[in-house]
Amino acid sequence: MSRIITLLTDFGTADGYVGEMKGKLSSLAPGAMLMDIAHDVPAGDVAAGCYALGRVWRTFPAGTVHLAVVDPGVGSARRALAAEAGGQFFVAPDNGLLSDVFASAAAVTVHLPVPQGASRTFHGRDVFAPVAARLAGGARLAELGEAIADPVRLKPPVLEVEGSDLVGEVIHVDRFGTLISNLPLERVARAATVKLGGRGFQLGATFADVPPGEPVAFIGSGGTVEIAVRDGRADVVLGFSRGTEIRATARRS
Amino acid sequence: MSRIITLLTDFGTADGYVGEMKGKLSSLAPGAMLMDIAHDVPAGDVAAGCYALGRVWRTFPAGTVHLAVVDPGVGSARRALAAEAGGQFFVAPDNGLLSDVFASAAAVTVHLPVPQGASRTFHGRDVFAPVAARLAGGARLAELGEAIADPVRLKPPVLEVEGSDLVGEVIHVDRFGTLISNLPLERVARAATVKLGGRGFQLGATFADVPPGEPVAFIGSGGTVEIAVRDGRADVVLGFSRGTEIRATARRS
Amino acid sequence: MSRIITLLTDFGTADGYVGEMKGKLSSLAPGAMLMDIAHDVPAGDVAAGCYALGRVWRTFPAGTVHLAVVDPGVGSARRALAAEAGGQFFVAPDNGLLSDVFASAAAVTVHLPVPQGASRTFHGRDVFAPVAARLAGGARLAELGEAIADPVRLKPPVLEVEGSDLVGEVIHVDRFGTLISNLPLERVARAATVKLGGRGFQLGATFADVPPGEPVAFIGSGGTVEIAVRDGRADVVLGFSRGTEIRATARRS
Repeated sequence: MSRIITLLTDFGTADGYVGEMKGKLSSLAPGAMLMDIAHDVPAGDVAAGCYALGRVWRTFPAGTVHLAVVDPGVGSARRALAAEAGGQFFVAPDNGLLSDVFASAAAVTVHLPVPQGASRTFHGRDVFAPVAARLAGGARLAELGEAIADPVRLKPPVLEVEGSDLVGEVIHVDRFGTLISNLPLERVARAATVKLGGRGFQLGATFADVPPGEPVAFIGSGGTVEIAVRDGRADVVLGFSRGTEIRATARRS
Repeated sequence: MSRIITLLTDFGTADGYVGEMKGKLSSLAPGAMLMDIAHDVPAGDVAAGCYALGRVWRTFPAGTVHLAVVDPGVGSARRALAAEAGGQFFVAPDNGLLSDVFASAAAVTVHLPVPQGASRTFHGRDVFAPVAARLAGGARLAELGEAIADPVRLKPPVLEVEGSDLVGEVIHVDRFGTLISNLPLERVARAATVKLGGRGFQLGATFADVPPGEPVAFIGSGGTVEIAVRDGRADVVLGFSRGTEIRATARRS
Repeated sequence: MSRIITLLTDFGTADGYVGEMKGKLSSLAPGAMLMDIAHDVPAGDVAAGCYALGRVWRTFPAGTVHLAVVDPGVGSARRALAAEAGGQFFVAPDNGLLSDVFASAAAVTVHLPVPQGASRTFHGRDVFAPVAARLAGGARLAELGEAIADPVRLKPPVLEVEGSDLVGEVIHVDRFGTLISNLPLERVARAATVKLGGRGFQLGATFADVPPGEPVAFIGSGGTVEIAVRDGRADVVLGFSRGTEIRATARRS
């Protein structure tokens, strides 16, 4: 079976950058199945790319190679990485983009050399794609670079207990304007209400449970509390965004 | 030959939702060829998704599985469907998204059970993708759910004769701003002019027949009357949108 | 090995147009690997499509078929083309979209007939996709149409010597707002500064070399001078766009 190589970038779909990476991959790993994950990650938004990749990779089969490039520091001293975790492979800049992978599975990480002649502004094509192709062709991580123990990780979002409250934050706003928090299902099981920016919401089941235009809090598909507005955008209607505090109050027993 | 699974959604290309579906499909139907149709259908716009899918599916070979998720009612009581029509397969919410398929081919439709543990807000990943994978693997429709005879269909657009006029409506506005109606070629063959929102247009051949900035009515690539503005957007220049009445007047013989 | 067919269009990703082409390709060239290059080329912007394709095709292996449709003149008298250059194949309207291919490799070009019944407004589906499928299936160019020697080429951007200056222009603005010129690395090797719209910039190494918000000129990944703003959009911050004059002044020796 041919290996899958996924592509996640902030390159957009108007320029040829994604195409140049696909051409390199096709030349160096003939027969690999290339799969677009998302190319409209906001430009330079490492946290958004990290969140998307963190949800996506778990759904792929062992052996998949994930090529992720949201790389505002390209050309600086930031390192280039390849990693293996949970039987899958990752190639990305060392800027925190793989934080979620590192947080959820034992990972082996190596520091990739930058080949002579690589463009200083397009490591996606000249550094990461060639390595992804080698991994798809069966290369072992140890052949690719020196092992490192200190890959960059994004500062984890706040998640702490305050009295009877669990306090977290909005960690992502999705295409529908839904506010996604880091409050996990298993820790809010006894909560009845959540407060976002000081406003209280009943913890309902889904946005189909409220009338159009009304907000609802529920356990989202990523296993954490989300706030949505039925047939609307919660970010716009409620005026909240990434980083807004969210607070779940335990039901009085 | 491996089966093709197409994906049509309103999930956008900034988040990981499309990627999560592709991961599930890749895990459950290894070797299937995944093909993106469109992921920027306007959020929750079932009619737009229906129109796109209605044009696309006819071009695919027998055996193709179409996974279509524009699903504003996810988590409500709306049913989940799989269908077979014209030798192809469809997996979608029961909200009218498959109306065009049902209107143009004899279809067998089944009502899909929602598996234990499925997210209430992401049936694309937890209900539809697994069924698409099973169909790509050769499962028969009858194995997947109970047959139903009453899938939801969108209210068909107006198409009626008034005296010597054929009256229809704009059913889609495309990326170029072109106004696409439901007046079919075979019924306007004798018409010389069409009226849109009270304004008359010569039924020309294509937008290359008029100067830049000028509107033209012609038989579009979907076999119906369209109004475009050369090198411009007809929706903006003319101020019309989906639902605007269009009227073809027969040539006096 | 199955052939690769790439797709580059201005069709966007909300409508079914890309999907209709993929369906045709899948029906006529079963097993071909379809790869999206870019579908959000600005509507009708042949120069932008030409630039993207010009960078992308070089990265693909021999035998690849590139299907490129940015076609504001569809339905007019403009010809339809297929071409072979550098061991790869191209199918496109004769409007300059292939200019970069013709400029950089010896090409054989044929004029494609328009089949009876083809839509006058969607040659991507009815003319170009069927030919791309035939090429992917091994058809020779000579079977597809009459050879021509005069395909349309876009007017090349300005590139001339004025005293000790090399004068060119901005030929593309990318998704990050970076201003990409046609001043090639090998001809600016001795330059220390570039002037864009009268404003001078040090020719640095990459945007990581300046503070956030500051502009920098460097040799970009396409081998020409680019002007970017770190963590910002150079087009917006500096107020320049495609066509702006750029001037490299040789270092005094």
